[in-house]
Amino acid sequence: MKKTDVKRVALAYSGGLDTSVMVTWLKENYGCEVVAAVVDVGQKEDFEEIRAKAMATGAIGCRVVDLRERFLTECAFPALKAGAVYEGRYLLGTSLARPVIAAAQVEVAREFDCDAVAHGCTGKGNDQVRFELAYQALAPDLTVIAPWREWEITSREDAFAYAAERNIPVPGSPRKLYSIDRNLWHTSFEGGILEDPGAAAPDDLRDLTIAPTQAPDAPENIVITFRQGMPVGLDGVRFDPVDLVSRLNERAGAHGVGRVDLVENRLVGMKSRGVYETPAGTVLLAALADLESITLDRDTAGFKRSVSDRYAELVYQGLWFSPLRAAFDAFLDQAHETSTGDVTMRLFKGQAMAVARTSPFSLYREDLATFEEDSVYDQADAGGFIRLWGLPSSLAARVRARASVDAVTIGGATPGSGSQAPAAAPKRAGRPLASARR
Amino acid sequence: MKKTDVKRVALAYSGGLDTSVMVTWLKENYGCEVVAAVVDVGQKEDFEEIRAKAMATGAIGCRVVDLRERFLTECAFPALKAGAVYEGRYLLGTSLARPVIAAAQVEVAREFDCDAVAHGCTGKGNDQVRFELAYQALAPDLTVIAPWREWEITSREDAFAYAAERNIPVPGSPRKLYSIDRNLWHTSFEGGILEDPGAAAPDDLRDLTIAPTQAPDAPENIVITFRQGMPVGLDGVRFDPVDLVSRLNERAGAHGVGRVDLVENRLVGMKSRGVYETPAGTVLLAALADLESITLDRDTAGFKRSVSDRYAELVYQGLWFSPLRAAFDAFLDQAHETSTGDVTMRLFKGQAMAVARTSPFSLYREDLATFEEDSVYDQADAGGFIRLWGLPSSLAARVRARASVDAVTIGGATPGSGSQAPAAAPKRAGRPLASARR
Amino acid sequence: MKKTDVKRVALAYSGGLDTSVMVTWLKENYGCEVVAAVVDVGQKEDFEEIRAKAMATGAIGCRVVDLRERFLTECAFPALKAGAVYEGRYLLGTSLARPVIAAAQVEVAREFDCDAVAHGCTGKGNDQVRFELAYQALAPDLTVIAPWREWEITSREDAFAYAAERNIPVPGSPRKLYSIDRNLWHTSFEGGILEDPGAAAPDDLRDLTIAPTQAPDAPENIVITFRQGMPVGLDGVRFDPVDLVSRLNERAGAHGVGRVDLVENRLVGMKSRGVYETPAGTVLLAALADLESITLDRDTAGFKRSVSDRYAELVYQGLWFSPLRAAFDAFLDQAHETSTGDVTMRLFKGQAMAVARTSPFSLYREDLATFEEDSVYDQADAGGFIRLWGLPSSLAARVRARASVDAVTIGGATPGSGSQAPAAAPKRAGRPLASARR
Amino acid sequence: MKKTDVKRVALAYSGGLDTSVMVTWLKENYGCEVVAAVVDVGQKEDFEEIRAKAMATGAIGCRVVDLRERFLTECAFPALKAGAVYEGRYLLGTSLARPVIAAAQVEVAREFDCDAVAHGCTGKGNDQVRFELAYQALAPDLTVIAPWREWEITSREDAFAYAAERNIPVPGSPRKLYSIDRNLWHTSFEGGILEDPGAAAPDDLRDLTIAPTQAPDAPENIVITFRQGMPVGLDGVRFDPVDLVSRLNERAGAHGVGRVDLVENRLVGMKSRGVYETPAGTVLLAALADLESITLDRDTAGFKRSVSDRYAELVYQGLWFSPLRAAFDAFLDQAHETSTGDVTMRLFKGQAMAVARTSPFSLYREDLATFEEDSVYDQADAGGFIRLWGLPSSLAARVRARASVDAVTIGGATPGSGSQAPAAAPKRAGRPLASARR
Repeated sequence: MKKTDVKRVALAYSGGLDTSVMVTWLKENYGCEVVAAVVDVGQKEDFEEIRAKAMATGAIGCRVVDLRERFLTECAFPALKAGAVYEGRYLLGTSLARPVIAAAQVEVAREFDCDAVAHGCTGKGNDQVRFELAYQALAPDLTVIAPWREWEITSREDAFAYAAERNIPVPGSPRKLYSIDRNLWHTSFEGGILEDPGAAAPDDLRDLTIAPTQAPDAPENIVITFRQGMPVGLDGVRFDPVDLVSRLNERAGAHGVGRVDLVENRLVGMKSRGVYETPAGTVLLAALADLESITLDRDTAGFKRSVSDRYAELVYQGLWFSPLRAAFDAFLDQAHETSTGDVTMRLFKGQAMAVARTSPFSLYREDLATFEEDSVYDQADAGGFIRLWGLPSSLAARVRARASVDAVTIGGATPGSGSQAPAAAPKRAGRPLASARR
Repeated sequence: MKKTDVKRVALAYSGGLDTSVMVTWLKENYGCEVVAAVVDVGQKEDFEEIRAKAMATGAIGCRVVDLRERFLTECAFPALKAGAVYEGRYLLGTSLARPVIAAAQVEVAREFDCDAVAHGCTGKGNDQVRFELAYQALAPDLTVIAPWREWEITSREDAFAYAAERNIPVPGSPRKLYSIDRNLWHTSFEGGILEDPGAAAPDDLRDLTIAPTQAPDAPENIVITFRQGMPVGLDGVRFDPVDLVSRLNERAGAHGVGRVDLVENRLVGMKSRGVYETPAGTVLLAALADLESITLDRDTAGFKRSVSDRYAELVYQGLWFSPLRAAFDAFLDQAHETSTGDVTMRLFKGQAMAVARTSPFSLYREDLATFEEDSVYDQADAGGFIRLWGLPSSLAARVRARASVDAVTIGGATPGSGSQAPAAAPKRAGRPLASARR
Repeated sequence: MKKTDVKRVALAYSGGLDTSVMVTWLKENYGCEVVAAVVDVGQKEDFEEIRAKAMATGAIGCRVVDLRERFLTECAFPALKAGAVYEGRYLLGTSLARPVIAAAQVEVAREFDCDAVAHGCTGKGNDQVRFELAYQALAPDLTVIAPWREWEITSREDAFAYAAERNIPVPGSPRKLYSIDRNLWHTSFEGGILEDPGAAAPDDLRDLTIAPTQAPDAPENIVITFRQGMPVGLDGVRFDPVDLVSRLNERAGAHGVGRVDLVENRLVGMKSRGVYETPAGTVLLAALADLESITLDRDTAGFKRSVSDRYAELVYQGLWFSPLRAAFDAFLDQAHETSTGDVTMRLFKGQAMAVARTSPFSLYREDLATFEEDSVYDQADAGGFIRLWGLPSSLAARVRARASVDAVTIGGATPGSGSQAPAAAPKRAGRPLASARR
Repeated sequence: MKKTDVKRVALAYSGGLDTSVMVTWLKENYGCEVVAAVVDVGQKEDFEEIRAKAMATGAIGCRVVDLRERFLTECAFPALKAGAVYEGRYLLGTSLARPVIAAAQVEVAREFDCDAVAHGCTGKGNDQVRFELAYQALAPDLTVIAPWREWEITSREDAFAYAAERNIPVPGSPRKLYSIDRNLWHTSFEGGILEDPGAAAPDDLRDLTIAPTQAPDAPENIVITFRQGMPVGLDGVRFDPVDLVSRLNERAGAHGVGRVDLVENRLVGMKSRGVYETPAGTVLLAALADLESITLDRDTAGFKRSVSDRYAELVYQGLWFSPLRAAFDAFLDQAHETSTGDVTMRLFKGQAMAVARTSPFSLYREDLATFEEDSVYDQADAGGFIRLWGLPSSLAARVRARASVDAVTIGGATPGSGSQAPAAAPKRAGRPLASARR
């Protein structure tokens, strides 16, 4: 593809330094028109100002799309139902927003009859993958432009210089301490001092949460109501998704809840350190997990843990628009049929802890009027259960104890026909504790 | 087996109500001699007093075995290396101690030439399984007696009455609020008000931890040193396992760290609610997980998560002495070859959080002198990576978009030979976000 | 429960020795009425004769229910879509029929206002579990009677003697070589000489298949048409499920296809050896797997393999009526949205092998008109892909090569504060092949 | 890196068209010296002729390394122990050879003091990944050259023309029907007519196997002896690895055993169709799986299936030299401690089927003298087992049946405090079979 083939590009525009510079760069380098696609996923910006800036910088059009609710109901809440936490710790706030933004961008591209899409992600991160896989799935006919992998600009200073030369109005200063991403689900920090995983993150590196040391000295309880795995109410009052998450962010954030500091494995091969704040998400995940402890049976809960892990990988690795994620959602919708009930969470000094849970579908026995000791559970049953449950490992232990070196020959099934050689018997340790081991 | 066939039984003896009554009950009902096997796994009792009580109650012998170190090095630390947490929350403090106690009990049985072993677990819990599977693996020739599944006693009151009739000295009172289990790794609480999962656990239901609200107002940092996945030092000083865990229990407990309140799925089919305190274990698990984030590569870390889950199941379900656990330990020894380094944990008001980590085997790029931007990572590589990575889901999206109802007939490979019927094309949603879904 | 409490029992009745004896035994021992529930799952019996025999033996009623189609569409085909094969080899023919039979039996029990259900399974097998778990799920109020776990009869000879004493007409002879189970999906053989896994099964131990050595000398091709994972046609002709499976059983059986000889792990703890014939099922499973190779993307196919294994366990272990199986079915319905197409299978001397496959939803590139070499796949992309794909293992190799013993001290993060001890560096082998290993 | 920086390159040389042309191309384009590294992994070539050709074409040196045994003992047999079969069908013959070849090539590069390595793989396949990841792990300092991703040659015809212009002697003709790879473990065919997955592969497309229709009319039995998961003998005679596999290839190939025709998912994103012949490997895999059925307990066998799948992915995807594979090998060494014994395989017309198996470590009950019916297995135990085993799904069924719409309100835990809305009760089907489903 030649650069001259692109006529009009829809750029995922944030109004920040990179995408501001890109409007001009795209026009200069591709000779194309630029449409700015701005997506509100809860990042709390002045969108009218952003629109004005886009037009002032040379865009021929700008659309601001409010997808806060769809971001929650179509991405964040399904991931919540999945229990998706990347590598056990990262709640995927950035990863989940990318498909929504890319999808809206594609819609803007169609509306403006664009033949290309562009994004402002660098070539070392995960976001480029998430954007581009979404484009490939939703609009494989559109040309994809990733300026950071193409242009000569290699630093924030370069970008400032580029803007200065061309009189492009840009925010902030050439020196930026962290790379920050904000939406309704989280705020993330990367870069700067965080690049040394051996150095503690500054305690004031915060946006949605207060430092636990500054949080109230009294715990606060909050009741979350779920219906079939979706959060629908707080303290007995029903809220729509955006309201619910906004309020919960405030309440949990005020107690310092939801900040993690971790090193993760990026899809593109290197490790990366980040600090993430997900106040509402943290409370909701812990609350739903707690509700599941009484509404899901052991087998379903057990298999769901493997789904959680794989779902998180898919989301993190840009595979939102994949057949497997769709199949997982079908699994989870079914599995969560009875995940309805209330969980009381205690918020205190950086922690959210479930302290009580109720559900009309509880499998906990107290709720079962007919589950009397004598009618349903007979302790004598346990003896039989244990004997059969332990039979395989018991046999294994006995066979290992019994089998001797002399018993093994090559060609034991056809005695006399072959050369003989003693087999090594499994090693046995003298001390009982390790007896199954060697 | 007839009861008269048992000549001498080794009883796992704690000195509590149940096992005190059992000494007499076994003698009365089996006409056998009773040997008391007392195992110190860190429950902090006066073992001389227990020994005296056993003999006074009619045991013909009593052995007190100190297995605190073996409990840690052969059970708790391997589970730590495995990252074993049952159903994502329970650190297995009780489950891990059972194999050690049973193994010691078998050794005592051999020493005293017993032909049976007995334990004081009820017929509704997991512990009976853990004890009896250990017996089956280590000494399948010994008869197993589980008085709680046999006798007429069905409550604590019954047991007290039984003891009073026979002048058996028993501790405590007929009214006991909770069922408690203590060892070096944890203290657990079950029963009483906890049986209502909708009721919050009393905040003072604690043994090893202080209430977070009572904890110091200043955070404290502590540095844990691991060598190949095993904890070996605190704040730069090397400690043996028992010392290390004891000290860490105190320091973490003083900050209210390590208490969870949860509903779990028992092996014997019902759900159960418990409160568990595992101060040192909680800190060590979080610290090792954090260390792994820089020392394990993505694939190993990913597969290890499935090992963690299964390992926890094995331990919880009494399968300690199983070939699978031995194979997992071999896997983990190899996987942790480089899990050596220091993690700084911040303890504060009930939380333990990793804030910094270093390792000579760190895979984090800052530590790799040769990992210069230009020599190892070329941003242009990402373009190729993304195109190939996204190819399968991109093809799937295109095929779904393209395939039409008319294309499908029965017997498409042998046209004309069969009846025809249109196939349903995959459903497609108009909204891009859901496009991969239906 | 006292035996006198049972008024009327619905017995899963086959007309064989065991259940014939049971009618009388139940009446004698429970003083209850007996209703015979006969379920046609394709076992090819004379059901009128069975009905007459049931009434002659003393049943107060008999229902013959034809569930052949529901057996296929609600059990066998969902398991096919799941790719469920127990322990990699057993196609679950018996396991799948049990839930259908038990469900029909419960319906008969309701119709006749019974207060109990009974089955003829022994106490050592899996079937008792499958029946009783179905009863528990569908009709927990009904009393369950398992005569084989209760009565004094312990052998086939005993049962014959019991029948002779009471003039109960029974089929066959006291000496029975094998335990056989037949339905539309399979015929199984257990017992007799098969109990020695070191002895080959007699080659004429067959019901649905001919010996491969006797099969035609010319291969035969057959085209299977699937729609969304369900088999709907043979050689271009649409057939309803019962017809399709019956015809395919005949055609595949005539080529000796679908017989396996294996040792499996029973749920109740011991290993068991069986010979199973599943002609149609074998062909359909291989055909669907082959179709999936062009219709499923890599990630979906990969995760489905773990679903296959767990689904097979659930079915084998009697957990058909479990929430997890329902959730799996939802997953599979979604995953198989595009599993539509034709597969040509070659049948020859005991083998069924896919030789060609087509689908309107094929993800294989030849079918994609737009998938030209230059537009979709650029070989240069591979270089970038490889560098990023290999980055983690490359870093791991380099770190292991670089890290030295001297670098590791206890308390490395707080130098000078603690005792020092060298850490063991990961072992390195001199030979390149093993270099990642130690 | 500039091309002029390379002084001497070690080329993985086969003597075929591509690598013959590459010697000249590398000299012309990199101005470097070329050393030919030829690895014997059982491809049955005249290696002296290959050496002569390499030198005649302009190489400054040539090393022929016989790695047949190491290929088996360090790659193929570990994969056999793992049960590694990619996507359930491909036995990885090519994938397994690549790490050995690359490792030998690196040794040759060191011997000749080379600063680069080169291979003859195209840019669309998996082999480029396998070679280059091995280089990255074993010799990250060496420059990697992949001519197929660089040069102008895009077809076999181009290569012939290039050779003709420069008088390079090349084998074969410009028209080549298939891409073929051979070693001791397998022969593979790709390309040509195989590129249409809807067309059957020609029946004579064979190298190591005869067509089943041409195979002997009488079955042949062969006894394989394993020791701890490694094959060590045939028909009672001990053989070294190369001999054992060579003989078994002949015997199984003569019966047409071990050919598959499939579509697989390449790592680089597209699907690919291949025909693979692995006679010895097919027999060994089936035999070991059969042996495991009596030597592994259920839990170990179950988890090993997930290891098999992931191990196969690692091998296929070039991750041989990864920490995870090393950890898997440790797991498997331990798990196979008792995989010692004999399996009788029947070879007939394309099929290899286990017909008998024995082991001194058999867990099958007949081998356990003490496993008498009355002493070890009490049928009455089964009743208790079933009741506890089925308790979770039974409770789930009852709760779903009982829970009603009216019971659910928002804020049920805090009555009166919130807006009310009825929850959807789980859907229930009227027909029992589907009752757990919706």
